[in-house]
Amino acid sequence: MSDDVRNVQQALASITEHWQPHRLTSINDYDVKVVKLQGEFVWHTHPDTDELFMVLNGELTIQLRDRDVVLGPDDVFVVPRGVEHCPQAAGEVHALLVEPRGTVNTGDAGGEMTSPLRELD
Amino acid sequence: MSDDVRNVQQALASITEHWQPHRLTSINDYDVKVVKLQGEFVWHTHPDTDELFMVLNGELTIQLRDRDVVLGPDDVFVVPRGVEHCPQAAGEVHALLVEPRGTVNTGDAGGEMTSPLRELD
Repeated sequence: MSDDVRNVQQALASITEHWQPHRLTSINDYDVKVVKLQGEFVWHTHPDTDELFMVLNGELTIQLRDRDVVLGPDDVFVVPRGVEHCPQAAGEVHALLVEPRGTVNTGDAGGEMTSPLRELD
Repeated sequence: MSDDVRNVQQALASITEHWQPHRLTSINDYDVKVVKLQGEFVWHTHPDTDELFMVLNGELTIQLRDRDVVLGPDDVFVVPRGVEHCPQAAGEVHALLVEPRGTVNTGDAGGEMTSPLRELD
């Protein structure tokens, strides 16, 4: 494996905390992130961008104000820009995110669950 | 599963031809595509964009002019913009691609392997 190849499972194995996105790689001005999720996040909106979730392991519910979107392994869902959402996971979920560089995990909500984008070790 | 959730494995199961990218979903002006690859593609460059490959199944070699990058399951590699490359797969490979809308699979090379982006059934 060359230095610039990233393995998603190896990256996930190095992550110990929930709700802390780590940058796997970048394409142009977009970041591809891996994250472990468990519990309930915060309701928030990204006013300027869509946000892609791809579940790799576990079951993730993305609560929207009018419905719940339930994602299992290999399911992909894009939260449209401006749509309020709140991820929730009863058990641990491994997920991949794609969004423009600089997108903050808590969007317009802020608060204690705001996490800077971390680099992998 | 709601209509707007896409399952990567279901999408791949519906694809019968090699080297024909199908649009799984979009985020802003980027497309996420699934594709089956086997054999050798053509040497080409995308002068204006990076291109992300994520291998889901099989082993994919991305030939660069100065080295080969070998990708197995869950490996992610980004070909930088302007870097000539030629994907090659001895056996069938299932992969996910991320690139800006309108990116042509054969880049600046054109030719008979040029494939329009297809929509999933």
